[in-house]
Amino acid sequence: MADNIRVTVWNEYRHEKSDKAVADVYPQGIHGQIAAFLGANADIETRTATLDEPEHGLTDEVLAETDVLIWWGHMAHGEVQDEIVDRVQKAILNGMGLIVLHSGHMSKIFRRMMGTNCTLRWREIGERERMWVTNPAHPIAAGLDEYFEIPHVEMYGEYFDIPQPDSLVFTSWFQGGEVFRSGCAYYRGKGKVFYFKPGHETLPIYYQSEVQQVITNAVRWAAPVAGPYSDISACTHDVDPIEDVEVQE
Amino acid sequence: MADNIRVTVWNEYRHEKSDKAVADVYPQGIHGQIAAFLGANADIETRTATLDEPEHGLTDEVLAETDVLIWWGHMAHGEVQDEIVDRVQKAILNGMGLIVLHSGHMSKIFRRMMGTNCTLRWREIGERERMWVTNPAHPIAAGLDEYFEIPHVEMYGEYFDIPQPDSLVFTSWFQGGEVFRSGCAYYRGKGKVFYFKPGHETLPIYYQSEVQQVITNAVRWAAPVAGPYSDISACTHDVDPIEDVEVQE
Amino acid sequence: MADNIRVTVWNEYRHEKSDKAVADVYPQGIHGQIAAFLGANADIETRTATLDEPEHGLTDEVLAETDVLIWWGHMAHGEVQDEIVDRVQKAILNGMGLIVLHSGHMSKIFRRMMGTNCTLRWREIGERERMWVTNPAHPIAAGLDEYFEIPHVEMYGEYFDIPQPDSLVFTSWFQGGEVFRSGCAYYRGKGKVFYFKPGHETLPIYYQSEVQQVITNAVRWAAPVAGPYSDISACTHDVDPIEDVEVQE
Amino acid sequence: MADNIRVTVWNEYRHEKSDKAVADVYPQGIHGQIAAFLGANADIETRTATLDEPEHGLTDEVLAETDVLIWWGHMAHGEVQDEIVDRVQKAILNGMGLIVLHSGHMSKIFRRMMGTNCTLRWREIGERERMWVTNPAHPIAAGLDEYFEIPHVEMYGEYFDIPQPDSLVFTSWFQGGEVFRSGCAYYRGKGKVFYFKPGHETLPIYYQSEVQQVITNAVRWAAPVAGPYSDISACTHDVDPIEDVEVQE
Repeated sequence: MADNIRVTVWNEYRHEKSDKAVADVYPQGIHGQIAAFLGANADIETRTATLDEPEHGLTDEVLAETDVLIWWGHMAHGEVQDEIVDRVQKAILNGMGLIVLHSGHMSKIFRRMMGTNCTLRWREIGERERMWVTNPAHPIAAGLDEYFEIPHVEMYGEYFDIPQPDSLVFTSWFQGGEVFRSGCAYYRGKGKVFYFKPGHETLPIYYQSEVQQVITNAVRWAAPVAGPYSDISACTHDVDPIEDVEVQE
Repeated sequence: MADNIRVTVWNEYRHEKSDKAVADVYPQGIHGQIAAFLGANADIETRTATLDEPEHGLTDEVLAETDVLIWWGHMAHGEVQDEIVDRVQKAILNGMGLIVLHSGHMSKIFRRMMGTNCTLRWREIGERERMWVTNPAHPIAAGLDEYFEIPHVEMYGEYFDIPQPDSLVFTSWFQGGEVFRSGCAYYRGKGKVFYFKPGHETLPIYYQSEVQQVITNAVRWAAPVAGPYSDISACTHDVDPIEDVEVQE
Repeated sequence: MADNIRVTVWNEYRHEKSDKAVADVYPQGIHGQIAAFLGANADIETRTATLDEPEHGLTDEVLAETDVLIWWGHMAHGEVQDEIVDRVQKAILNGMGLIVLHSGHMSKIFRRMMGTNCTLRWREIGERERMWVTNPAHPIAAGLDEYFEIPHVEMYGEYFDIPQPDSLVFTSWFQGGEVFRSGCAYYRGKGKVFYFKPGHETLPIYYQSEVQQVITNAVRWAAPVAGPYSDISACTHDVDPIEDVEVQE
Repeated sequence: MADNIRVTVWNEYRHEKSDKAVADVYPQGIHGQIAAFLGANADIETRTATLDEPEHGLTDEVLAETDVLIWWGHMAHGEVQDEIVDRVQKAILNGMGLIVLHSGHMSKIFRRMMGTNCTLRWREIGERERMWVTNPAHPIAAGLDEYFEIPHVEMYGEYFDIPQPDSLVFTSWFQGGEVFRSGCAYYRGKGKVFYFKPGHETLPIYYQSEVQQVITNAVRWAAPVAGPYSDISACTHDVDPIEDVEVQE
């Protein structure tokens, strides 16, 4: 673990290249905007990676130098190679944090980590969302008020097919009648996973201060802990007993 | 859901055919013994399925008629076809219960459902195990005492790389110095998953009354609930709002 | 445990006596209406108890014959004697189920079981509530659709100061902008606790079929399991070791 | 919140005064030893408080200046005044961390926070304990190996009557045949609670480096988060709806 938290912001980076409306909102790409506000913190270093780079930009070297990986994808989940998903999963279980944003709920890596469909309802009419803090003791809620609003969003609604989170940090309300578990924290292996609902390719959500605050908090929470096991996947065969055990017939 | 609980006992069924010591303990196969004690209950109907049958015995028809699937595998996890794993996962998320026994912790289906390595330590010296009840309110603990012992077991020890269970029903003690979360209950989608540690191909563990009691309890707990969603994986696009929503500019 | 589930419906029973609007909605008292719909099930027997009876109707004899206690209180939480709260807590930890309804969130017994303030926000303008199922695998969700609506309710909103439930079965949406964890299941000792938000003294909520379905499901879920420990609060001193332990200097 | 974490170490401080064997091990009292090793960290400031001081040393002023309270008690739990317990509970729910050590499991404050009996089995023959890390991703496991041993301990065994922890960080093995959930982390209100089993009045357990490491980690984890709500117990009445709500008849 470095002194600074080393964040890799991964973006599918397709919408921005094909759709002027997206490029207008995120001229450096969604990854560029996320890396920009994170990098403004003295304790965080950022790099970016995108789908169309070799190995999607997620080589063994990059992952070895990544404390927290942020994931944004939407239209090309199926193009992510399974062997890269295997590699990222292994890195998470060995301690790397994973923060999955918005439509990343259907990414291969999030579905892999959850073991469930990760499906949900949605609607896109630009309605209002209120994100209520449902665990005010959690470090990811630091600096927030009881709730914050995002004025125009895509609605994501229950049933969200995920395991019950180890901690449910946010629960959202939508104008049109739905609720959503919108901030979900998990321990997995030596690593941590946080799903956070806000985001959209044409809405300026990653410019909103509360959203930036939560993602920054989540990076600090998800950074690896220098705990036991260099490779948690390595079964230890033939463990000696604590002392001679007399097995009775 | 039928009136009776329809259980399919799946067994790799390789050890029994190649190793006389195993066949001596389980002449009808491990699946045969499990089906026998379960089938003695008036509310449970059983069938069996094995690896070397077409589609591993787990056709769409079989799964459609299965309320709870019991899984025993050990030496041939890698031979289970991925498309059958996909099918079983889908059935679980749509309500079928899954009970994974002993070395099934490394099966593809259990690892798929957990999202983690599911690795653990082990040792085989025939030592003693004590299974302590750590949730006496859980229906899977019905009819048990504070703990029960299994006189000769293969040790399975922590760290067991699984998500923290929704309920930790048993925690085991081993003579040689290890502990293990040995009875782990999960909700996943519309379905339930229970991992239960006891079992071995050459030890007569599935003849022990407490072990039979727990597996029987687990079948009743894991049977499907007639709840919402016929196919939980089907996203509902274009959900109408509860009423006309005025979106403010 | 009897063959039938023996339910005691406890009601403060003050509003009904002092307020004609309440008596018009619940002429037999809220407890009478809940006992009536529960008692229509062949596997459930009911009795009632109220605040102004001796020992609040919750004598040792009554509790000894109670599998599940349902609690409704609102204006007189402070009049419940602490020694009766102690007695009910002990019964729960020894296996009796507790179902707390609506304004019972501020009852002494619920706050005792939770260890937290159990405070929340509220508003009374007769707005609409949607109760979304957030654990479709849970037996308390049996027979329901994805959500159900209650047309006119008192709003209860987050932050609801409770421990994260062992299972979050319902999450509610309100017209006025709030969300609420409205169906919360807990294991405690040998017993189970379920908090369920619906109800009100002047709104006919306990006549609604989905609400009755949930309370009936909860009774079946909360009924005691014949597990270990006759009195879970009795520490076992001087437990013998499994065999002679050689303590090294 | 100050820049440094302000820890108050509370000790019953009776054994040390009446029993030479205890005073020989802990000449400055158990609180003195804990404060000493914590205070050696640049980011931690300590003070102590004991039962026989006015208000048990836990005045409003002291609690207002305490980020994390450590609790050690054994023979005089009953002498702690209920109004001080109320005050400490309120402080925890408003953000103060609580770390309960060893025999503090039967303290009024821990039982209050848990809502359960908090009873367990015990035995005192100086046997060996192995503390296994069962959540290697948790910050409280930082700097540890897969397990550590304490050579001579009092055994604490299941069933430990507590709510299932939000995270089970340690599970212990004992020579004589028991297991124990020995490191249990909880979120409660705006605060956090950690129960940690090691300790004893006549065994030099608080001099062991791994034990010191865990308590130090726990202090950092339990320090308050600057989240929402100045007083979480204050219900907010008459919350306005997000906008005019049309209530349909």
